[in-house]
Amino acid sequence: MASFREERDTFGPINVPSDKLWGAQTQRSLQNFDIGGASERMPEPIIRAFGVLKKCVAKVNMEYGLDQSIGKAIMQAAQEVAEGKLNDHFPLVVWQTGSGTQSNMNANEVISNRAAEIMGHKRGEKSVHPNDHVNKSQSSNDTFPTVMHIAAAMEINSRLIPELKNLHSALHSKSVEFKDIVKIGRTHTQDATPLTLGQEFSGYATQVKYGIDRVSGTLPRMYQLAQGGTAVGTGLNTKKGFDVKIAAAVAEETKLPFVTAENKFEALAAHDAFVETSGALNTIAASLMKIANDIRFLGSGPRCGLGELILPENEPGSSIMPGKVNPTQCEALTMVCAQVMGNHVAITVGGSNGHFELNVFKPLMASALLHSIRLVSDASASFVKNCVKGIQANKDRISKLLHESLMLVTSLNPKIGYDNAAAVAKKAHKEGSSLKEAALNLGMLTEEEFESLVVPEKMIAPSD
Amino acid sequence: MASFREERDTFGPINVPSDKLWGAQTQRSLQNFDIGGASERMPEPIIRAFGVLKKCVAKVNMEYGLDQSIGKAIMQAAQEVAEGKLNDHFPLVVWQTGSGTQSNMNANEVISNRAAEIMGHKRGEKSVHPNDHVNKSQSSNDTFPTVMHIAAAMEINSRLIPELKNLHSALHSKSVEFKDIVKIGRTHTQDATPLTLGQEFSGYATQVKYGIDRVSGTLPRMYQLAQGGTAVGTGLNTKKGFDVKIAAAVAEETKLPFVTAENKFEALAAHDAFVETSGALNTIAASLMKIANDIRFLGSGPRCGLGELILPENEPGSSIMPGKVNPTQCEALTMVCAQVMGNHVAITVGGSNGHFELNVFKPLMASALLHSIRLVSDASASFVKNCVKGIQANKDRISKLLHESLMLVTSLNPKIGYDNAAAVAKKAHKEGSSLKEAALNLGMLTEEEFESLVVPEKMIAPSD
Amino acid sequence: MASFREERDTFGPINVPSDKLWGAQTQRSLQNFDIGGASERMPEPIIRAFGVLKKCVAKVNMEYGLDQSIGKAIMQAAQEVAEGKLNDHFPLVVWQTGSGTQSNMNANEVISNRAAEIMGHKRGEKSVHPNDHVNKSQSSNDTFPTVMHIAAAMEINSRLIPELKNLHSALHSKSVEFKDIVKIGRTHTQDATPLTLGQEFSGYATQVKYGIDRVSGTLPRMYQLAQGGTAVGTGLNTKKGFDVKIAAAVAEETKLPFVTAENKFEALAAHDAFVETSGALNTIAASLMKIANDIRFLGSGPRCGLGELILPENEPGSSIMPGKVNPTQCEALTMVCAQVMGNHVAITVGGSNGHFELNVFKPLMASALLHSIRLVSDASASFVKNCVKGIQANKDRISKLLHESLMLVTSLNPKIGYDNAAAVAKKAHKEGSSLKEAALNLGMLTEEEFESLVVPEKMIAPSD
Amino acid sequence: MASFREERDTFGPINVPSDKLWGAQTQRSLQNFDIGGASERMPEPIIRAFGVLKKCVAKVNMEYGLDQSIGKAIMQAAQEVAEGKLNDHFPLVVWQTGSGTQSNMNANEVISNRAAEIMGHKRGEKSVHPNDHVNKSQSSNDTFPTVMHIAAAMEINSRLIPELKNLHSALHSKSVEFKDIVKIGRTHTQDATPLTLGQEFSGYATQVKYGIDRVSGTLPRMYQLAQGGTAVGTGLNTKKGFDVKIAAAVAEETKLPFVTAENKFEALAAHDAFVETSGALNTIAASLMKIANDIRFLGSGPRCGLGELILPENEPGSSIMPGKVNPTQCEALTMVCAQVMGNHVAITVGGSNGHFELNVFKPLMASALLHSIRLVSDASASFVKNCVKGIQANKDRISKLLHESLMLVTSLNPKIGYDNAAAVAKKAHKEGSSLKEAALNLGMLTEEEFESLVVPEKMIAPSD
Repeated sequence: MASFREERDTFGPINVPSDKLWGAQTQRSLQNFDIGGASERMPEPIIRAFGVLKKCVAKVNMEYGLDQSIGKAIMQAAQEVAEGKLNDHFPLVVWQTGSGTQSNMNANEVISNRAAEIMGHKRGEKSVHPNDHVNKSQSSNDTFPTVMHIAAAMEINSRLIPELKNLHSALHSKSVEFKDIVKIGRTHTQDATPLTLGQEFSGYATQVKYGIDRVSGTLPRMYQLAQGGTAVGTGLNTKKGFDVKIAAAVAEETKLPFVTAENKFEALAAHDAFVETSGALNTIAASLMKIANDIRFLGSGPRCGLGELILPENEPGSSIMPGKVNPTQCEALTMVCAQVMGNHVAITVGGSNGHFELNVFKPLMASALLHSIRLVSDASASFVKNCVKGIQANKDRISKLLHESLMLVTSLNPKIGYDNAAAVAKKAHKEGSSLKEAALNLGMLTEEEFESLVVPEKMIAPSD
Repeated sequence: MASFREERDTFGPINVPSDKLWGAQTQRSLQNFDIGGASERMPEPIIRAFGVLKKCVAKVNMEYGLDQSIGKAIMQAAQEVAEGKLNDHFPLVVWQTGSGTQSNMNANEVISNRAAEIMGHKRGEKSVHPNDHVNKSQSSNDTFPTVMHIAAAMEINSRLIPELKNLHSALHSKSVEFKDIVKIGRTHTQDATPLTLGQEFSGYATQVKYGIDRVSGTLPRMYQLAQGGTAVGTGLNTKKGFDVKIAAAVAEETKLPFVTAENKFEALAAHDAFVETSGALNTIAASLMKIANDIRFLGSGPRCGLGELILPENEPGSSIMPGKVNPTQCEALTMVCAQVMGNHVAITVGGSNGHFELNVFKPLMASALLHSIRLVSDASASFVKNCVKGIQANKDRISKLLHESLMLVTSLNPKIGYDNAAAVAKKAHKEGSSLKEAALNLGMLTEEEFESLVVPEKMIAPSD
Repeated sequence: MASFREERDTFGPINVPSDKLWGAQTQRSLQNFDIGGASERMPEPIIRAFGVLKKCVAKVNMEYGLDQSIGKAIMQAAQEVAEGKLNDHFPLVVWQTGSGTQSNMNANEVISNRAAEIMGHKRGEKSVHPNDHVNKSQSSNDTFPTVMHIAAAMEINSRLIPELKNLHSALHSKSVEFKDIVKIGRTHTQDATPLTLGQEFSGYATQVKYGIDRVSGTLPRMYQLAQGGTAVGTGLNTKKGFDVKIAAAVAEETKLPFVTAENKFEALAAHDAFVETSGALNTIAASLMKIANDIRFLGSGPRCGLGELILPENEPGSSIMPGKVNPTQCEALTMVCAQVMGNHVAITVGGSNGHFELNVFKPLMASALLHSIRLVSDASASFVKNCVKGIQANKDRISKLLHESLMLVTSLNPKIGYDNAAAVAKKAHKEGSSLKEAALNLGMLTEEEFESLVVPEKMIAPSD
Repeated sequence: MASFREERDTFGPINVPSDKLWGAQTQRSLQNFDIGGASERMPEPIIRAFGVLKKCVAKVNMEYGLDQSIGKAIMQAAQEVAEGKLNDHFPLVVWQTGSGTQSNMNANEVISNRAAEIMGHKRGEKSVHPNDHVNKSQSSNDTFPTVMHIAAAMEINSRLIPELKNLHSALHSKSVEFKDIVKIGRTHTQDATPLTLGQEFSGYATQVKYGIDRVSGTLPRMYQLAQGGTAVGTGLNTKKGFDVKIAAAVAEETKLPFVTAENKFEALAAHDAFVETSGALNTIAASLMKIANDIRFLGSGPRCGLGELILPENEPGSSIMPGKVNPTQCEALTMVCAQVMGNHVAITVGGSNGHFELNVFKPLMASALLHSIRLVSDASASFVKNCVKGIQANKDRISKLLHESLMLVTSLNPKIGYDNAAAVAKKAHKEGSSLKEAALNLGMLTEEEFESLVVPEKMIAPSD
């Protein structure tokens, strides 16, 4: 039999499971927002960031007069939240009030009850008050955007950028490994002039490198914290300097360069920083989609595709076709990219629909951005480990294709002109002959001249 | 201490937790696709649909020679999957191979091990073989699109349409309840000519009604099943008529009018039906965004907004502003709408990127569409229960605003012409006077004429 | 030297170029909305639809008492607008008032001045009044949505559906032409079991066929006209039955089954019908993207790609690589698809942001949908004429690839089981040998058995 | 009668209008891509950028041996293109080959024919050759991305950023002008604690300021030029140092800090820089949507809305409602924002779909981004001039609403606690009384205490 205790808020009493630390407002939200089930819960990085924030605020509030014993108990309870120890006490879903008030109250309630216990009191008695103590000098309207920024910045720094760096490094290594393998280029999906496989991979590596630059370039605005704006951005019910102290405390706690937002009205009413960062993720998704597509096409086959790359075989590929191996890591990654592009639209729609002093698409925006960050990070890691590192060049196939190509004719341009070179290529194509045969038949140049001009290895860089 | 047993596939042996029914390929996928964690698992409706499908296929395969005792055991095991009893044995995430092969094999492995147990054999011995028995005459390439369609059609019929009908009904009831309340209209967010509050709600009800028509209109293509196409759409390794029998069996099992897809190549290589249905969801999201926005603006206040509606008070609205009540259900609903719009882009990107005989964005498309269906369904239900049903008209406020409006002047057009009527309105606006005062001062008409023409109650319909 | 005449509206006098028929409000809009330049003008189908509508309204208004000579002159002037003869007098851009009021007034002003001239009066004298006569019983709020629906329905019927039918027909013809060419299938971009090239094209044809069904399925709501709702949907300043008569007149004029909208509030306040139809276009774009991608990859080469199709050579492909020919029609088509997907998001955002009695994203939504319709129509026509019709199968290449494939092993499953068949394929892959060699070496079956089982021509359909 | 001359390319002869400077390949494209009509032509900034680029390349080519007289003639002709004097000779639409080859050849052909004329030769004789002279050392694959970057960077610097700065300045001025007007805040669209109207506008100004930072932050990658990569990024047919010299010449010509791209493979195969910059535009669109929405809601009325702002009256607002004035500039701006969000998706889809050495969605991406830049720039300018500058505060209305609000109760929290303060607000709300009455009736504090605590002017900042 489940047992319950009574908790109260300004709406009156309500029953809460005895084994849970949450209070009345959390319980109301649970009942009023039965949307999507457990998999739709507020992302864990938000919960942890609440722990970080509430700890820092308690510390600063003690400077401004909060009872020391209460303050210390709050700090200890908040630390437990920051470490993920109380995750089970945060049952609310993303689809709640658009300010995240209910999750802020969830944090306040859990921390106040836990702090009360630490101090030897009982749950539900409000000896540590969720509003007057834990939420002191705060509003959901500034705490929720603050935890959004803390969570996103932490996830970007601890998860996304490291994984992108690993991906860059893996691609760059392949670029070096393949630097001497000359292969046919392809433009418009059609045969083109040669390049090295290393050059091809250097393009991928550069895309990822710029992706890191792009997301890093958005951090200055992500490091701005709304805390201290309280209800509408004015800082009502705070003291001067409170906002700066909080940002400093969070910076110290997280080792990230958070600062107080220079304009708190913008920080509550808009979440352009999230739209912007999601835009960087969207660009990265476009990059990764291109890279993964290339790799699976270059690895297509084994006998009826391009076959230039040999991809690692990680699992049986088909439930009906025995022996089939598929570029499954590319598939997982491109699916992730599609979802990131979709989440970006969700975030954009949410970001554009704020009204007056508050944007009320906060939980959606937080959830979608953190989802995108997590997916890109994990899928990049999986892609590196299970695909990129094991890619091998199929040198025989590459060489065979290279030497059959008609586009080597391009190196004749400076000698015989574009129109004559075109005639050579067209003749070879029509007759199924080699370029040399066609060129000699047309009397465009001597065999010696041809041999000295059409050298793939000389076609991969500007000439001296 | 966790214990393991050895399972095998064509890649060799691998350890699997003893208490799980899954086999080697599921285990490989778990290890190779560590992306996103448990909340990213394949949606439950897909798992259940696999149960439905595998049961039906076993039944049909028995007609084509599958051993009867094996067939019956498979049917029994599949039924358990269909009922959700074996959910814990489906650990794979969405971000896997783009064909969903690994989830198909997960189903095959769980069902084969469970069927083996039913028959008195042990797990892992393949006395019932995941490929040769459970997956007989199938390929992931036709089973996965089939379960996508089964899951989506079931969710639409059992969840989405009923909830939209409830929402339509609730809005329609309000439309009737408010049919005699004449209020100011607003166009461009500015005061306009009057209408009844009931008329305003009739617009919302019509939007939802059409939304039901829209999603229903996509079902003919959703009811087409790919099963029988096997690897590339040709039906290799099936017998003639197999596809039709399967569709009939699934139709009987689900009580929904499934048929075999008329072109299996389209059914494997593209998932336009998902893009289409997501488009219907996207339209519904646009409708619900508009409705929820209107309701929160009409209910804005309590003292400094429009204040025409009184929305139910479900919870404290603010952690800092005592007594504040917010339109939180509108917020949850509009956040859901934003996510649905985003998911639609994800689905569109996935749907457009199929290649040759197979689209390999299947799990993404399945996950995103089922997510959208679930969110719209649940949020609609929550909105009906916690908001729409309790909406009250603030009649005093509505009446006050109506009679102050200058746009009642429009009913003078037929009498004094647009230009003169404009002069009256502008004079009243400039002087802060009533329309009547302005009209009389300008000598446009007599008081009697004014009184007979400017009657809001007569302005809400065409004249006889 | 440009010459001007004075025109007036309720804001006072303003100079208008003498050679133009527009009046004061058009001129104000020109000056107040200097956004984007001439290429951003309201789409021509909207202008023409205004001609159709104003003609029909004048006709009906004459039944309700509009002076017959004025009515006839309006009808004549409106007919000229409908025929595109007065396009130069419609200078306004899309980015104006969100109700399209200024374009409605542009139509009213042009028609009133032109009607006045027809009656022997001068421009600017308002002998035919833009509001009291031409716009009689109307509001921009009902005329603009009405012309949106007229324009879209006409473009869909006269342009989009015919071009999609041509595309379907061209793809279907190829499907028949290629019905006996057995080729390798590809799933996950990797070699798979065979199918015919005709089957492959039948999938494309089916996608387009369903696309036609999809857009046709949205027409019932597109045929609903807002006319008669006037300012806010109530029909103020119209007579009973006016709305039905207008819809009937438009239906007669256009030969399309227009009806009056059953709920005028929805018809003004939301444009869900546009979001819905754009969703159909978005699905078609996803289909066409897939088809065009496939065709360019199957036609990739000429020597280092898949090379199964020979695409028409329409122009030199490269400014540097002589003799290069590219799949340029595929490229134009896929670029169009990307824009259509983008326009769909624009339309969705616009459609979701209506407020109260009026959606004020009307010109954007009209422009974006008509843009998408035009682009898909024209690009389909170009694709048919310059690409699809000329596609040839490269039979030698197709045959060569088919017989090298390892996936023919799939037809051994029923005989030797999945695991053994996998061993055969893996051995052949590893050793670079043929399947037969591998199978025989492993002693799985006799040469005779192999020959009778592995027959690509038997692998393209279910067995008897 | 139109007259024609014969032009030739590697496909043979073709007739071209005598009065046009273009050649055979342009003519073929005109005939092969009949998509969308004249309004779909390649954006003018691209044409002009081709002029800039071709001039610079001729200059550098002369250093590498291009005949001086030909080089000078090319430079002169290119300068005419750069100045827009030859726009009529650029008839091609966006929907052409995805590399923009045809527009590159259009530029080559026009410049070669014009240069030939300058040198006293005739059109069509190729005395100046479009490929061998004008396109020397180039490929469409590097020129087109180069002009994309030149065009975008020039439009951003000369158009977008200046207009955003004007908008920021206008909003900031209003923020200063309104700095002492205390008003009610609104969160969740509901009454909240006060702030000044100046603070509210400071939030808008900050959004725009950050928008400038955002788009500026993308320029380092936009300033990277692909030129010198030629066909596939290797620089085949160029000399060492060519790429650096070109970038320097373009930088000098445009006074913008262009540099050569550090990796030419990335620069041809991906256009992530466009996706990124479009992401900045998308963020700006989200910001402007919010700002414009706020302004129209705050200006709603005149009698039945919020009525805190008085917006400039620029034109009659309604064709049926006399005297109506609408927030039309807000509407134009928000419609632009929706299109920018849509274009962003189009660009993202295009950007993610490159293959191998070349992205072939170039013209789409160029067109969509330049469209977005132009629309945001022009709409911002119009918004500043016709709306922001003329906004007035309706002080009486603002004051009246402020003093009726219940949320002033928040300043009692520190004194009487959240729960008691809530009781006061709820009592006042229920009884329709003032806060003071409720507080005194409940005996929470004395009148004196209330008066000293509840002072809106003290509620707009942290306390000392």
